Amino acid sequence: MNSAATKKNMKKAIPSGENIIGFSVSKIAIEVMRSTNPAMMKEIEGEFHKATSEEIDSALEKATDAFRTYKNTAGTIRAKFLRRIADNILALGDPLIERAMEESGLPKGRLEGERGRTIGQLRMFADLVEEGSWVEASIDTAIPDRQPFPKADIRKMLVPVGPVVVFTASNFPLAFSTAGGDTASALAAGNPVIVKAHESHLGTNSMVAAAIQNAAMVTNMPDGVFSSLNGTGVELGQALVKHPLTKTVAFTGSYRAGKALFDASNQREIPIPVFSEMGSINPVILFPKAVENRNEALANQYVGSVNLGVGQFCTNPGLLIGMENEHLDSFIKHLVNGFEKVTPSTMLNENVCKNYEAGRASLLEQAGVKMEGVSSDEGNNSTGRPTVASVSASDFLKNKNMQEEVFGPFTLVVKCQSEEELMEVVLNMQGQLTATLMGEDNEFTRYYQVIDELKEKAGRISFNNVPTGVEVCHSMHHGGPFPATTDSRFTSVGTGAIKRFARPLCYQNWQPSVLPLELKNENLRKIWRLINGEWTKNPIA
Amino acid sequence: MNSAATKKNMKKAIPSGENIIGFSVSKIAIEVMRSTNPAMMKEIEGEFHKATSEEIDSALEKATDAFRTYKNTAGTIRAKFLRRIADNILALGDPLIERAMEESGLPKGRLEGERGRTIGQLRMFADLVEEGSWVEASIDTAIPDRQPFPKADIRKMLVPVGPVVVFTASNFPLAFSTAGGDTASALAAGNPVIVKAHESHLGTNSMVAAAIQNAAMVTNMPDGVFSSLNGTGVELGQALVKHPLTKTVAFTGSYRAGKALFDASNQREIPIPVFSEMGSINPVILFPKAVENRNEALANQYVGSVNLGVGQFCTNPGLLIGMENEHLDSFIKHLVNGFEKVTPSTMLNENVCKNYEAGRASLLEQAGVKMEGVSSDEGNNSTGRPTVASVSASDFLKNKNMQEEVFGPFTLVVKCQSEEELMEVVLNMQGQLTATLMGEDNEFTRYYQVIDELKEKAGRISFNNVPTGVEVCHSMHHGGPFPATTDSRFTSVGTGAIKRFARPLCYQNWQPSVLPLELKNENLRKIWRLINGEWTKNPIA
Repeated sequence: MNSAATKKNMKKAIPSGENIIGFSVSKIAIEVMRSTNPAMMKEIEGEFHKATSEEIDSALEKATDAFRTYKNTAGTIRAKFLRRIADNILALGDPLIERAMEESGLPKGRLEGERGRTIGQLRMFADLVEEGSWVEASIDTAIPDRQPFPKADIRKMLVPVGPVVVFTASNFPLAFSTAGGDTASALAAGNPVIVKAHESHLGTNSMVAAAIQNAAMVTNMPDGVFSSLNGTGVELGQALVKHPLTKTVAFTGSYRAGKALFDASNQREIPIPVFSEMGSINPVILFPKAVENRNEALANQYVGSVNLGVGQFCTNPGLLIGMENEHLDSFIKHLVNGFEKVTPSTMLNENVCKNYEAGRASLLEQAGVKMEGVSSDEGNNSTGRPTVASVSASDFLKNKNMQEEVFGPFTLVVKCQSEEELMEVVLNMQGQLTATLMGEDNEFTRYYQVIDELKEKAGRISFNNVPTGVEVCHSMHHGGPFPATTDSRFTSVGTGAIKRFARPLCYQNWQPSVLPLELKNENLRKIWRLINGEWTKNPIA
Repeated sequence: MNSAATKKNMKKAIPSGENIIGFSVSKIAIEVMRSTNPAMMKEIEGEFHKATSEEIDSALEKATDAFRTYKNTAGTIRAKFLRRIADNILALGDPLIERAMEESGLPKGRLEGERGRTIGQLRMFADLVEEGSWVEASIDTAIPDRQPFPKADIRKMLVPVGPVVVFTASNFPLAFSTAGGDTASALAAGNPVIVKAHESHLGTNSMVAAAIQNAAMVTNMPDGVFSSLNGTGVELGQALVKHPLTKTVAFTGSYRAGKALFDASNQREIPIPVFSEMGSINPVILFPKAVENRNEALANQYVGSVNLGVGQFCTNPGLLIGMENEHLDSFIKHLVNGFEKVTPSTMLNENVCKNYEAGRASLLEQAGVKMEGVSSDEGNNSTGRPTVASVSASDFLKNKNMQEEVFGPFTLVVKCQSEEELMEVVLNMQGQLTATLMGEDNEFTRYYQVIDELKEKAGRISFNNVPTGVEVCHSMHHGGPFPATTDSRFTSVGTGAIKRFARPLCYQNWQPSVLPLELKNENLRKIWRLINGEWTKNPIA
């Protein structure tokens, strides 16, 4: 694309400020919200009307009605819808990227990568439901002459749950937002989706939501399969979680917000699953030989990982744990050298920036914490200053506050005096999305017990990899013990994410003609099924 | 067995009144509990010492410690343990059955059947973990030269969660109790179990718990893999759910108790999954042609199903919904004839009996409810009187109280004036374990929309079967939308029950030598694995 064309694309279309409710748009409220450019600290064009309770009801009622049709659409049909969403997002072209840049402060390359991931996820779930085996079809055939009682024909498969509310995340305006992994997997499973737009990227949300609305219309999905509402987390968020027609909630963000939604659901007359992916400090254990042998390289690797995306990843390594010795000291020096050279960058929004500064300051004030180094560039009001600190394991163990996530380019080095102390640190660790082990080959067997305990603390354990960069694939598990998430049994990244939005339904003694295609003897969908305890793609003779 | 031998076995051994804590027994408290014979309304021999907070801590600490070893035992080893439990229970012989009869009021044949089911479940889970595919192993191999970033080697499998607290159920003193489906599946998955003995069958619990303790010792399981504590639901139950070392809870019983445990967990600093299987009235829809063609036979089928086990099954059909016409009237007459002839039987305990009488009386007092018939035998203080009542759909729809479970031999016939009214009844139904459709072949297509809505209300839908009698198999789903259970995505019966006690763990870039056997390239366990998206038993070349 030449620069003239780029400029042309740059001519901004102001995104629609209306709420999307199925195939309609609506702006009843006079009250509007605006996005802010975090780098310039000024409001961006576009007025987004807050959803009223009438509009909320309407979105949920339409979704409930749409579910009657949508739940029975074939996976092949839903695949077309998902692929069209992907195509529509691509067709938005540069203006989408520009708007997201303006609203999030994230650089172009990063957002283009994120768009690629968003498109990739939509297509991955399209493939998954087109193939069809994800429903875990299981069949136990009848044994009419069994003694003392006949055995009935019993079949089971996963079915969708109903309207899903998706909260968009500030740190991924595309891949964990309007058409992100939550929306893609919920739609793929057969559920209508109601998106709560994030206050900090209302325009990006509006553009993507319109792309989804259009995709639903041109692929003949039912009216109400998708809605997008504007509002604050405290008002709109709570209203959506408490709405009696909401069946499941997916959220990515802070512990405070995620836990509030979880608590709100548990106070409902009928509690519903709330999948909150919340805070995590993603501990990294630096085994001594690795620190000795790869000292500077290791430090550089973690300067990069901690500062990636201004530290605004849920898998950001906020804790580096090592054995106190001269090699660790040298590692810290290299770390400090690296941090000093990092230019502070704009954070996602004013709140994120303020919270980072407050969290960083609070952690640096804790007893025993030593500031090791900061970026030599002070940055400005909208940037987060890269910071590395250290603390002894004994001080760390005395103070639970040190396990609170400081969301941004911050990491704390914990120095252990002994293997026993390292074990204590691991045993006292909160639940995490990831844990990482940097070590030489023989150290993985040498420290086996430490690693075995670490398994209880995290959803993913990496060897000699940085935790940032979550691969979207079948074997990914992006989830972990509380407080990393509210349900460690489910992932929000990878094909497994679809399982959050489905439940088993058992069909006993049904007439073959009325069974769903997936459970009929013929297996016309050619999916994997568990038949009398054996996995097979064969039909039942 | 001849009658002399039976008599000899009948010489009652008084079950131990101690708490079982791993390989030890303990009775610190002076306060004891006693079981009551519900038929005779008198206490049975045996004093059971209430668990103290010290004993509770000890059981959980031992379990936590045992978990370190037990989680890493091979499925083949755990299978030996489970099979030994089954053998040990069988070896308890008639005295176990006699004690359970005395404590529960259930007849011998029923308890022998239940023992068979208990043994069968233990062996089924042994087979499942010996085979090994249940861990859902998934492997995505590395692509080192992928652009723009290399793809890491990522593998995933289910791992156990830690100490599981199992609440035993009054209505199944064996199959949903000490060594029932919850214990069997939790142990199979690799978790230590702490059982809370049920107040109404303390002796049965004690005998089975000793059998499990012995099995753990002779098969070399770690000390603490199993404990059994005596106490009340309000005190011991709450203490166990709130204990910081408890990782998951399984419960079967009333809505009130199950919801209290769920709420207690959500108030923990770290909430944990509580799988409560609670109340359900298991609606049956009687389609008109079936009522017309099979009038008396249908009535007899439901006289049997409602009164099976004195109506004390969680799948008991508490609601029969039909179209008001002469055939339904005739069906009700046959139902009444049947109910009149049923001899009232002893209920499980005094509370169950009192609650049945209170619930029955309350329901009969609701506006529009007509008592249709009762057993002509009045029974006595310890029995539940079989009762059938009726109500118009319009009155039923006005009053949510009519959806409360009356646990016992009671059923309510709901008479609909039209198909629209039938649909209204279905749309206003609470979550259920099961729903049942009795109809002629063409009625299943004729009423397809009603059936499609019913799918949102139940975990299992049967055609022309009674809901009682839950088959233990791969395809069973015994669970359903709230308030039937606290988590409709999981089953408490069948092989799927093991999934409640496991979570995925992701292994990124691990050295082959330290990967678990299930995730190594060679696939020496010969299990089904998802490799780069394809299910196969093949090794990775």
